[in-house]
Amino acid sequence: MALAFVTSNKHKFEEAAEIAKRHGVDIVHRAVPYAEIQADTLEEIVIHGAQEVSASAGGPCFVEDAGLFIDALKGFPGPYSKFVFLTIGNAGVLKLLEGEKNRKAEFRSAVGYCEPGGKPVVFSAKCVGKISAEPQGKGGFGFDPIFLSDGGEGKTFAEMTTELKNKFSHRGKAVEAVVKWYKEEKSLKSGKK
Amino acid sequence: MALAFVTSNKHKFEEAAEIAKRHGVDIVHRAVPYAEIQADTLEEIVIHGAQEVSASAGGPCFVEDAGLFIDALKGFPGPYSKFVFLTIGNAGVLKLLEGEKNRKAEFRSAVGYCEPGGKPVVFSAKCVGKISAEPQGKGGFGFDPIFLSDGGEGKTFAEMTTELKNKFSHRGKAVEAVVKWYKEEKSLKSGKK
Repeated sequence: MALAFVTSNKHKFEEAAEIAKRHGVDIVHRAVPYAEIQADTLEEIVIHGAQEVSASAGGPCFVEDAGLFIDALKGFPGPYSKFVFLTIGNAGVLKLLEGEKNRKAEFRSAVGYCEPGGKPVVFSAKCVGKISAEPQGKGGFGFDPIFLSDGGEGKTFAEMTTELKNKFSHRGKAVEAVVKWYKEEKSLKSGKK
Repeated sequence: MALAFVTSNKHKFEEAAEIAKRHGVDIVHRAVPYAEIQADTLEEIVIHGAQEVSASAGGPCFVEDAGLFIDALKGFPGPYSKFVFLTIGNAGVLKLLEGEKNRKAEFRSAVGYCEPGGKPVVFSAKCVGKISAEPQGKGGFGFDPIFLSDGGEGKTFAEMTTELKNKFSHRGKAVEAVVKWYKEEKSLKSGKK
């Protein structure tokens, strides 16, 4: 049974498949909908999601969630980044930070893995940076145009090539963590036979 | 089997019990936790919640959710009002509206009712008003100090007595709707016997 990435976002799946391939792991795309709960942390959201989808997946699977956590705004927009992007957008976030010196922010990603009847396993990763003074760049999506990754030489995520962005990407790191762990687990299990 | 209001908020229960009593309906308080999903509407959240709690409640029950929907901010903070209040707060919302002439806003409430194995029934209510220029009053909670109800004579929810606030309250109206419906349903069923 192949490892399934359950997501409605085809682009996310393609990114992940690329990473998995590098580690010699095949993943398949499943777009079954599942409930994302309201919670303070991404980890709680993916634990709940992974348990829900594993019941119907018939094999090992994982879900992923990500968000932008801004220091001066107590972690806002955090787990509700998509909704906040679709309502107040980049302009709203920049307005909230007007006159604010502390522009520290993190993009965080959490992956929840579960097998049918099993206990969920969680992988977390982040990309530390800050919020730019104004939007820069046309690439990426969501808050990418206002996020400057540490070490990114003043480029926002929206100004980077996909290859460069993936070097910093919170999601890339979390997906890599689950894939590497899965490969290790599988080889341990087959070693025991 | 008494009608149960499932909420972790004792204050919400007391308000509801008062309303139910006026209609000759007894309600009981149950504080079992349940998952609130992420959704664009309060109605989706309470449908999911009511179905989840009814499975363990052993009898008829309802859950409630509320939020502040600001016109110029495309419905922000909406279903995520609690998180937004705890992060950017009233000050953040006022900052987002700086220079904005359209200050229309609504407090909305949705109640989801369900019986074990039954289909959920939803009741919605709202209170139309606008966002004040600055916080006024010390009463209430959440966004009450910046919400001016239409017909409220320039008082925010935080400046009203509980009695007056309940006259306008979105939650009061939604709870009253479920209680009246429940009473009607019960009398129809007993009439059929």
